[in-house]
Amino acid sequence: MLIVQKYGGTSVGDLERIRAVSQRVIQSAKQGNKLVIVVSAMSGVTNELIDYANFFSKNPNGKDMDMLLSSGERVTAALLSIALNEQGFKAVSFSGRKAGITTDEVFTKARIKFIDTQAIKQELNQGKIVVIAGFQGVSEQGDVTTLGRGGSDLSAVAVAGALEADLCEIYTDVDGVYTTDPRIEPKARKLDKISYEEMLELASLGAKVLQNRSVELAKKLNVNLVTRSSFNHNEGTIITKENNMEQALVSGIALDKNQARITLRKIKDKPGIAAEIFSTLANENINVDMIIQNIGLDGATNLGFTVPENELDLAKNAMQKILDDEAVIESDRAVVKVSVVGVGMKSHSGVAATAFKALADESINIGMISTSEIKISMIVQEKYGELAVRALHEAYELDKK
Amino acid sequence: MLIVQKYGGTSVGDLERIRAVSQRVIQSAKQGNKLVIVVSAMSGVTNELIDYANFFSKNPNGKDMDMLLSSGERVTAALLSIALNEQGFKAVSFSGRKAGITTDEVFTKARIKFIDTQAIKQELNQGKIVVIAGFQGVSEQGDVTTLGRGGSDLSAVAVAGALEADLCEIYTDVDGVYTTDPRIEPKARKLDKISYEEMLELASLGAKVLQNRSVELAKKLNVNLVTRSSFNHNEGTIITKENNMEQALVSGIALDKNQARITLRKIKDKPGIAAEIFSTLANENINVDMIIQNIGLDGATNLGFTVPENELDLAKNAMQKILDDEAVIESDRAVVKVSVVGVGMKSHSGVAATAFKALADESINIGMISTSEIKISMIVQEKYGELAVRALHEAYELDKK
Repeated sequence: MLIVQKYGGTSVGDLERIRAVSQRVIQSAKQGNKLVIVVSAMSGVTNELIDYANFFSKNPNGKDMDMLLSSGERVTAALLSIALNEQGFKAVSFSGRKAGITTDEVFTKARIKFIDTQAIKQELNQGKIVVIAGFQGVSEQGDVTTLGRGGSDLSAVAVAGALEADLCEIYTDVDGVYTTDPRIEPKARKLDKISYEEMLELASLGAKVLQNRSVELAKKLNVNLVTRSSFNHNEGTIITKENNMEQALVSGIALDKNQARITLRKIKDKPGIAAEIFSTLANENINVDMIIQNIGLDGATNLGFTVPENELDLAKNAMQKILDDEAVIESDRAVVKVSVVGVGMKSHSGVAATAFKALADESINIGMISTSEIKISMIVQEKYGELAVRALHEAYELDKK
Repeated sequence: MLIVQKYGGTSVGDLERIRAVSQRVIQSAKQGNKLVIVVSAMSGVTNELIDYANFFSKNPNGKDMDMLLSSGERVTAALLSIALNEQGFKAVSFSGRKAGITTDEVFTKARIKFIDTQAIKQELNQGKIVVIAGFQGVSEQGDVTTLGRGGSDLSAVAVAGALEADLCEIYTDVDGVYTTDPRIEPKARKLDKISYEEMLELASLGAKVLQNRSVELAKKLNVNLVTRSSFNHNEGTIITKENNMEQALVSGIALDKNQARITLRKIKDKPGIAAEIFSTLANENINVDMIIQNIGLDGATNLGFTVPENELDLAKNAMQKILDDEAVIESDRAVVKVSVVGVGMKSHSGVAATAFKALADESINIGMISTSEIKISMIVQEKYGELAVRALHEAYELDKK
């Protein structure tokens, strides 16, 4: 098989860890696999470099930052290649540029435009393991760029897609994707498989295994992702196409604590007021999540929405500027969002009813509801958040396979 | 003026030092100069990276090492550019590749083949200060390469030559080139000017300001070098063409303590024996310096030569292998080489006589003598080395301008 493996910061956290990774790579090579390895910077290195930059400037320019930050991954790539060669496995270290990863010019958060895999293929054909510095590429003008948060995952997925690799293994310090956070529900079960769509919902709801950008790219490029731990040999979770699997009714329960609710009362119901409110919030880069609107008995509009907790004050200030004096702005930080995710919802009715009943049985009041094809999200009081997760996990029998 | 400035490891030793360098650069920019800055890695960084590599392998391959080691200079270049931009001076950081420095494929000690200055010129024309990561280039196959010891000096000289810069300033932690080592002779005087040829002799005799490769390249490319300290504002020493200056009779006195003498007695005087001896030493990579040969009264040949002290045992072993049992191999570690260097010797006679008289006056015996157009070297007993330096410094009145 042709496999792309990606090792994150904690997996290559120090020299001993890099050696352990080299042994894992060798194990896979001995099984006859062709391997491309993508590595992050050793943990702490990127933050140290950012501290260095901040010594000189609170707002360093992106071009210099990318020159600075891209060095960490190059070091890891070189060291891993040295470790592999020393153990008798031919390897070669590549920068993002040498790997053919061409990006746009948006420094510090560049997007990959295309990958020229010629150099990678040439080395693979010579029986070499190719070790690529993640998180980086090169612009068409020849400047080094970095891909932003989760950039090394993106490098791995993009390279796997371009090479049409059989598998893209993402190694972190967790075993895979769980039905819910095991710290909240000890009965949480690791999933063997999950669809891209479900993973996207879970990632956007706070599951920290993978970032949305990487899952989206994997979906787009049809890359079979596996997320697993580099600290043990447990099987991970495969993230793949929906039709490749038995469709579970519900795959997981997510809890997002970074939520605050704003309720606007007595708004003048003039045309375009909602548009004005939400375009104002968008201009301030505030991420509005759930929205409900209803007409009060007095004929005035009530509008409720949720924002990330740390953007609440910003949102309230923005509202004060555009609403007239009669409008009332209420807010509540003590709310969380509980979500049920599963592709099975598409073809099964009654999934939402089960959720509502489970919460009602625990006397948990649901403040807001929003649904998508494969997700039901509910806003509840913060103090009931973890109880809600456990109740839903139980209701859908997620501890059982 | 168009000036290339190069700052070495101690000059950019930490973040405070990089800030100090940024202020020095700005001072020069305010005087209206166009500036290209070449930087080394922060002191200690390169050694740390080598330690990392040695954790995995005692003999890491060159290609990976160059990927690894080239990262240190990139960090410094990015940080200095950030510091300059923060202070309102437009700057941009370049890797060796972006600076257009193309080398051969000899990893860890590549040679520069050519420099495409287009990108540098473009930024200079936009009024920017270009900060280049020293010590590195890129091969025509697109792999990053490093230039070996003193590589950042080489980068600076090569870029200055390619840009036809007015000046190439090499900043270190010493003030410039002295008539001799001030620790031996406190009356030693800093030279305002010295010719390439004299600098080459002094460098090969142990003056550590600049390495020969850089001076040779400066000579070849006609680059006016200035070596000065980044820790004060003293004027440095200009290293330039001979005919640009009043020709001093003698410019400096050098002392090389890393010398040992081998004397071979009773060698059979067969044809080709000298060739056999010196080709054997060359094959062992032993650097033979001075040689004398004479026919003894017994008709057998005596051959004396000097080698670096740490290569003495290797040289003796090599000789034992090829000489017959009658030959006698003697050696002496307690010798040093004292040299007088000056372009004035070319056109003045009696320079050597002055040296011999100065040593005779101190009752110092001269063991071997070798001369070049601009140099007289003498082997003396180690215990007289420093006295010999002071006597010669006095004899040529080097404390006076």
